[in-house]
Amino acid sequence: MRKLWTPLILINFKSYTEGIGQRALKLAKEAETVARRTGVCIGLAPQHTQITELAKAVSLPIFAQHVDPIEPGSFTGHVLAEAVKEAGAVGTLINHSEQRLKLASIQTAIRRMRELKLTSVVCANNAEVSASAAALKPDFIAIEPPELIGTGIPVSKAQPEIITETVNRVQQIEPEITVLCGAGISRGEDVAAALELGTKGVLVASGIVKAKKPAETILEFAEAART
Amino acid sequence: MRKLWTPLILINFKSYTEGIGQRALKLAKEAETVARRTGVCIGLAPQHTQITELAKAVSLPIFAQHVDPIEPGSFTGHVLAEAVKEAGAVGTLINHSEQRLKLASIQTAIRRMRELKLTSVVCANNAEVSASAAALKPDFIAIEPPELIGTGIPVSKAQPEIITETVNRVQQIEPEITVLCGAGISRGEDVAAALELGTKGVLVASGIVKAKKPAETILEFAEAART
Amino acid sequence: MRKLWTPLILINFKSYTEGIGQRALKLAKEAETVARRTGVCIGLAPQHTQITELAKAVSLPIFAQHVDPIEPGSFTGHVLAEAVKEAGAVGTLINHSEQRLKLASIQTAIRRMRELKLTSVVCANNAEVSASAAALKPDFIAIEPPELIGTGIPVSKAQPEIITETVNRVQQIEPEITVLCGAGISRGEDVAAALELGTKGVLVASGIVKAKKPAETILEFAEAART
Amino acid sequence: MRKLWTPLILINFKSYTEGIGQRALKLAKEAETVARRTGVCIGLAPQHTQITELAKAVSLPIFAQHVDPIEPGSFTGHVLAEAVKEAGAVGTLINHSEQRLKLASIQTAIRRMRELKLTSVVCANNAEVSASAAALKPDFIAIEPPELIGTGIPVSKAQPEIITETVNRVQQIEPEITVLCGAGISRGEDVAAALELGTKGVLVASGIVKAKKPAETILEFAEAART
Repeated sequence: MRKLWTPLILINFKSYTEGIGQRALKLAKEAETVARRTGVCIGLAPQHTQITELAKAVSLPIFAQHVDPIEPGSFTGHVLAEAVKEAGAVGTLINHSEQRLKLASIQTAIRRMRELKLTSVVCANNAEVSASAAALKPDFIAIEPPELIGTGIPVSKAQPEIITETVNRVQQIEPEITVLCGAGISRGEDVAAALELGTKGVLVASGIVKAKKPAETILEFAEAART
Repeated sequence: MRKLWTPLILINFKSYTEGIGQRALKLAKEAETVARRTGVCIGLAPQHTQITELAKAVSLPIFAQHVDPIEPGSFTGHVLAEAVKEAGAVGTLINHSEQRLKLASIQTAIRRMRELKLTSVVCANNAEVSASAAALKPDFIAIEPPELIGTGIPVSKAQPEIITETVNRVQQIEPEITVLCGAGISRGEDVAAALELGTKGVLVASGIVKAKKPAETILEFAEAART
Repeated sequence: MRKLWTPLILINFKSYTEGIGQRALKLAKEAETVARRTGVCIGLAPQHTQITELAKAVSLPIFAQHVDPIEPGSFTGHVLAEAVKEAGAVGTLINHSEQRLKLASIQTAIRRMRELKLTSVVCANNAEVSASAAALKPDFIAIEPPELIGTGIPVSKAQPEIITETVNRVQQIEPEITVLCGAGISRGEDVAAALELGTKGVLVASGIVKAKKPAETILEFAEAART
Repeated sequence: MRKLWTPLILINFKSYTEGIGQRALKLAKEAETVARRTGVCIGLAPQHTQITELAKAVSLPIFAQHVDPIEPGSFTGHVLAEAVKEAGAVGTLINHSEQRLKLASIQTAIRRMRELKLTSVVCANNAEVSASAAALKPDFIAIEPPELIGTGIPVSKAQPEIITETVNRVQQIEPEITVLCGAGISRGEDVAAALELGTKGVLVASGIVKAKKPAETILEFAEAART
């Protein structure tokens, strides 16, 4: 099913003021309009508190930003995979650079996703860590050099070799895994460059959520992805 | 306002299977029925994903189980205080024994609650840690010896001196703080004992959420709290 | 005994290249020379691996930079209080801003120090956290606004009110606790200012360890402390 | 060089009372006697505070129990690779189940070891995590199912398939990596079984450090490893 999702534009709402409440809802609807018009798949990763709301409001795949590597039980304040699924999410980010996990926890989180037929998107900071993550067989790996996150300098331009190396090393270990690319993506041409380098989509946050006119930027991204 | 909430029965849904989805909703409605009938305040702390839903479904104070000590920004997978507030929560648990925080993070989380006019309930494992937390001026401190959590052995019976010592030390440092008591509370008499020892309510999880007949247990708790 | 140590200049070697191996030993001996000449107490906090060596080489109080909040047992890679004591340390830093601990862990680490008759120096980032730490009754509290650490801008000049407020709040809760001050201390006058504000010494790192002529800087500090 | 070390018996002193101070020194000397007599390589991983002392006292390879994934700098309370090397260690354990690290930190710690020509021994809890670690190219991987650690039930008997699967998956990804096996190893026959399953040695802690007669147990292990 996730194959149907590519090329994928996955929008991470983080903890941005622009990504909560009514603004989150508006952003979701604008993304849905673009997805319908262009046929490009757009995923949304809002705050946990708005997964249910967004999953009801739009027919786009909704992702959690994180799940904890736990079974149901005595885990106060943790994010339970089952709860995320019941809320309407189809998957989750795992190990984002702002929420790094222990190696064994990444494995458990991926396994929990698999058990619940949810999609795992593991973030990695370089090609070697991507290879390491690949051995755990997530559905997606998103390569994001942390030093470029939020800079507006696209990894596809600044460090294209990291992307191609990641694609190669991941393919060697698990050819089934889909590679996304993130960090500094803020224009359509960055998306196009990412796809040319062998990825199947982008993970983007401030580039869209903090854009002056998010609807236009999403459209720009989608059109670049479609080409 | 929080003064109006005492005596308080605060139900922590943790990551229990019995505390998510439709079961969470049913539990919330049963609690609301008891609160109306007895006049005792009952708070609910569900998974983040269900705060919105429960806040809409019942007129009881809803708490998050955790918020991260952050301002809005680049914090993927974190729980933002503003998001929790927009979802309808009136406050949050902080530093539960299953989600211990660094000292400086506890301070920041309490401050964030205060800024948003939300209520902070800081958990502590003994009287000295309670005194330490009191210096940070949260609204509530919940004393819970971790070794009794989930045992069904009530702290009010097993270690009553921990409760009285906590009440005393907290009062010395900040008389405005309301003390709750948790761990092992599973019967009405445990609630009554907790109040007699000087607390203003209980923090309870499995004692209600995993009870055979939660509605009856909530009622038993509320009646004991009212006396 | 710790009363005999004031005024105290406590030098944190961190993980600096200049603070390991032969350079650590040289620094220790220079500090000892100054301590003998001026009568000012100088403590040293080297890497764990050099506690034994420095404790044998000089007759100055040696501190660990951190101990884990554990009893002897199955804790691979942890720093055991008993091991630190056997190595010749007289105490430890706890909760440095580069090694923040959970609240309950700070309490346990302080208790472990007390059990072994070792000295605890708890670091705190502001006056309120210092008050919170004071309730746990460590021997020393070192107030260090993290934004000034390593800047060369002395807290005693940039934010003198943080120091006086810390001294006041700590005194209110536990008058026996000795307050040190850190962050940005790089000249003798910074030390003098810190003492005038009511502290009993300084916690210093780069100001001495990375100084061009450490021996001269130590002497400058000690002379300022003596006045 | 590490090839010369196999078969390897690597003794983890953890934070055991029996593994610090004079007892650590006595254990080290007994291990050296056995190593000389049998020709089997025996490595020792003491508390950080005793690395220097043991490295001077015996001519056996000394390992740290942990190093932090840092360059020299402002890292109070961290264990710096350079400091461990200057103390005389030849390598370190990384990611022991009692000191689990984030994925990116494991990569950095391995890289730091490589830069300093030190040996990395990464611990993993199952075959899949071992494969993941293998992509990061450490020198050794020690497979230790955490549920068996300290039980006296040897993994080589309880779950032999975990060992063979680990050896296979690691070989596929990086044939140069040497696999050790740990958890529950307490008798010579456990060591022999581990080697028959394709590993090149054992990681052992309580089985030796807490043995009634450690010298005899070390000899039993070494003779089993030699066969």
